[in-house]
Amino acid sequence: MLELNLALHSSTAEPLFLQIVRGITEAIQQGRLGSGDKLPGSRRLAKSLGVHRNTVLAAFDELVAQGWLLQSERSGTFVNHTLPEVQLQQTATLPGYPTRMGFAFHPIAARRPQMFHTPPGELVMAGGWPEVRYLPLTELSRAYRRALGRHGQSLLSYGDPAGHPALRQELARMVAQRRGLSVTTDNVVLTHGAQMGIFLAAQLLVRPGDVVAVERFGYPPAWTALRTAGAHLEPLPVDEQGLCVDSLERLLQRMPVRAVYLTPHHQFPTLAVMGASRRMRLLELARQHRFALIEDDYDNEFHYEGQPVLPLASADTHGVVVYIGTLSKVLAPGLRAGFVIAPAPFCEAMVALRGHLDRQGNQVQEVALASLFEEGLIERHIRKMRKIYKARRDHLHQTLQHHLPKDLSYDLPRGGLAIWARVHEPWNAVQWSQKAKQQGVHFETGESYVFDQSPQPFLRLGFARLNEEELTQAVTSMKKALDTMRPTSKG
Amino acid sequence: MLELNLALHSSTAEPLFLQIVRGITEAIQQGRLGSGDKLPGSRRLAKSLGVHRNTVLAAFDELVAQGWLLQSERSGTFVNHTLPEVQLQQTATLPGYPTRMGFAFHPIAARRPQMFHTPPGELVMAGGWPEVRYLPLTELSRAYRRALGRHGQSLLSYGDPAGHPALRQELARMVAQRRGLSVTTDNVVLTHGAQMGIFLAAQLLVRPGDVVAVERFGYPPAWTALRTAGAHLEPLPVDEQGLCVDSLERLLQRMPVRAVYLTPHHQFPTLAVMGASRRMRLLELARQHRFALIEDDYDNEFHYEGQPVLPLASADTHGVVVYIGTLSKVLAPGLRAGFVIAPAPFCEAMVALRGHLDRQGNQVQEVALASLFEEGLIERHIRKMRKIYKARRDHLHQTLQHHLPKDLSYDLPRGGLAIWARVHEPWNAVQWSQKAKQQGVHFETGESYVFDQSPQPFLRLGFARLNEEELTQAVTSMKKALDTMRPTSKG
Repeated sequence: MLELNLALHSSTAEPLFLQIVRGITEAIQQGRLGSGDKLPGSRRLAKSLGVHRNTVLAAFDELVAQGWLLQSERSGTFVNHTLPEVQLQQTATLPGYPTRMGFAFHPIAARRPQMFHTPPGELVMAGGWPEVRYLPLTELSRAYRRALGRHGQSLLSYGDPAGHPALRQELARMVAQRRGLSVTTDNVVLTHGAQMGIFLAAQLLVRPGDVVAVERFGYPPAWTALRTAGAHLEPLPVDEQGLCVDSLERLLQRMPVRAVYLTPHHQFPTLAVMGASRRMRLLELARQHRFALIEDDYDNEFHYEGQPVLPLASADTHGVVVYIGTLSKVLAPGLRAGFVIAPAPFCEAMVALRGHLDRQGNQVQEVALASLFEEGLIERHIRKMRKIYKARRDHLHQTLQHHLPKDLSYDLPRGGLAIWARVHEPWNAVQWSQKAKQQGVHFETGESYVFDQSPQPFLRLGFARLNEEELTQAVTSMKKALDTMRPTSKG
Repeated sequence: MLELNLALHSSTAEPLFLQIVRGITEAIQQGRLGSGDKLPGSRRLAKSLGVHRNTVLAAFDELVAQGWLLQSERSGTFVNHTLPEVQLQQTATLPGYPTRMGFAFHPIAARRPQMFHTPPGELVMAGGWPEVRYLPLTELSRAYRRALGRHGQSLLSYGDPAGHPALRQELARMVAQRRGLSVTTDNVVLTHGAQMGIFLAAQLLVRPGDVVAVERFGYPPAWTALRTAGAHLEPLPVDEQGLCVDSLERLLQRMPVRAVYLTPHHQFPTLAVMGASRRMRLLELARQHRFALIEDDYDNEFHYEGQPVLPLASADTHGVVVYIGTLSKVLAPGLRAGFVIAPAPFCEAMVALRGHLDRQGNQVQEVALASLFEEGLIERHIRKMRKIYKARRDHLHQTLQHHLPKDLSYDLPRGGLAIWARVHEPWNAVQWSQKAKQQGVHFETGESYVFDQSPQPFLRLGFARLNEEELTQAVTSMKKALDTMRPTSKG
């Protein structure tokens, strides 16, 4: 009878029976145990390994079930001599974890989102990326600790899929005071970022083939969420006042529209602000045609000139607006603190769906954020960041005017975290961005945002995450990149 | 010219222009401003209100756009005398937030999940509810603080939708050591609880009308997630060894099956442990018929008798298993710390979908949990809780044997957090649970878990969240409830 030479380690976390299973499978695969070989009895093996006999029996059971061993009451335990081909290929618990799938599935037609990774020393002018260097990390940390300390046991249990009432109440108060939305806690559903709000709305609104109108220059992750629900998307033009409502009217004459997804405040990516009359026309059209307006108001707070414009939702008297909000820009994207505001019947449906999507949010964080609202800390942070962002916008503007006055043109945005600029002849936007990358500056060009991904003479220059010194450096590097593109004169 | 008597409060957070908009709309609605009335000039009104003229102009613009006011360059600003019916109904920024929807939508056929609210002084024998009174809250709080302090800025930015690599690595190590799964970080996708893992898998696997087989006694929230993706569910019987594979084979002869969702370890809700030979047959059937096995291994760690049984995924050599794990039972449901393990191509597809569902997880918490794994704290917590739960199971068993020996029968579960018991004649399970509620004890009955919601003579008695004293009290109250159900003899 053969000796197994199994090396068991009681110090590792791996259960002993699992180590035995692995050891025997390896011995068979490496040929140390051959087809038909007899194994030691369980008592003897247990003794030689210094383990309980039940441990060996459990390992044998597993190996028999997996087809590696055969057992008979009379003659003992053997390596299976009729191991079929399929089982010989099976490496059981060994490193042979499969790399391919044994079934078909339906991947979505979109890649994983950008990582926004900043290579050290490089400048990323990412328009959707707020400044996190001023985040009140100490206060946030204290708020977590307080929430855990006071209510940890209940917050870490199952809770309301709509989100913790404390944060919903603070958000209801905020949008009532700052955005003209007279809502109560019942109209607020917390989501894991704005993206989940869009995803939930899409799932409830869209059935395969339904038409959803979107901005031709817009936010691709929202389009993917809508398409995942089966939407057929119809792009509508965008001008200096945002979505062109005339075009929507023409579309409505041709086909029924289930919903319109739009960013009316600081249009993404162009920063255009939708005027009041267009907003009223949109609401009237939605009422007449009974479609939903999915209003993504992702950075309402950062408006620098004149009064902020009221959301569509603030004038919605017919229940046509699903309002998507987020603290991603106000505080930080990594918190995934989004919310949806809608009339109660739609909120109820969202909550039921959300309960079956991921059950509930992170209540510890919800309560922590509610306490920061209560203390006024979030309001103060918004005021501080608005000043900082305005100064950065102005600085980027001046620097662009100084270094690239003839190469770019743009309307200075009244709000938002980026400048959307047209690239002048003879420059090519994509080529410029590639050359700039070599100079250590990253920015996106129009193709990233246009519906058909066609070449576009636009750049989107995010200024929120770079301080004034970094912005100067970024623009001078942009200029250097242009210089490398100039045709060299050959005297 | 009329005086408006607007009361502005610069102390509130509501912007002044919004207060003016609201004040004028209210004045019109209450009749203080009549159709055709002329408003004061913007300069005069600004002066009388003590605000900048631009603030008044912004308010007028908004009111004109909303149709309340008319403006002409020559004669000034008037209350609209042609306010159409529709606009008179509009209460604009006033409390008239709609209560009904102006569009149709498709709610899911499921209510919001249970709240698991414990009325004070009452005992809830909830089977899916771990004990949170022993949670290492201080350590968790410290781990949050450390994560925020060391990496706050990057953790609060955009990150990998697959989850932070530190926690994925710890989980890969854990399942390799404890569950025979030889996987790497690339095979692990973090999810917001097990529920999101099931939801994502369903979205990738199922197209409307596809058949998914499920356990006839099973986990309804998973069924809802599968149905949301369009699945037609086929229930399969469950016996003392879990899902009946014979029945699955017969189903496969009748129709193609896209996936099987099951809980092989401690079957939910019956606690049956699937034997090794059934597991191997299931894997072989999946390989032959190219369907996916969605293996929900929700409380692997809490196994008290003999060796834990290896997951199906540990013997998967053909890429047929999507393995769903969670820390909800190990630590706490409120963390929403779930994970999925699958071959890399499926993980990639999950990550792309997840990126468009809610972008990414809570990285601060992911890093905090990774550090608790690294310190060995989670392993120690598991060992501690396993002892506590085993003692509670044994105590509940003894107490039931003592007080209700003839009223219930069950197999003592080898693992899990509940006892699944058959109710003997003449008792009715639902009636018993209602009477027990009056005695302050809550438990679920078979109908909550059976596919067709038909009456079932079963109780599910969760023991994890009640200490021994509470369990004794719960069982004596159960007995009292039975006593109220006995027919009174009328001598």
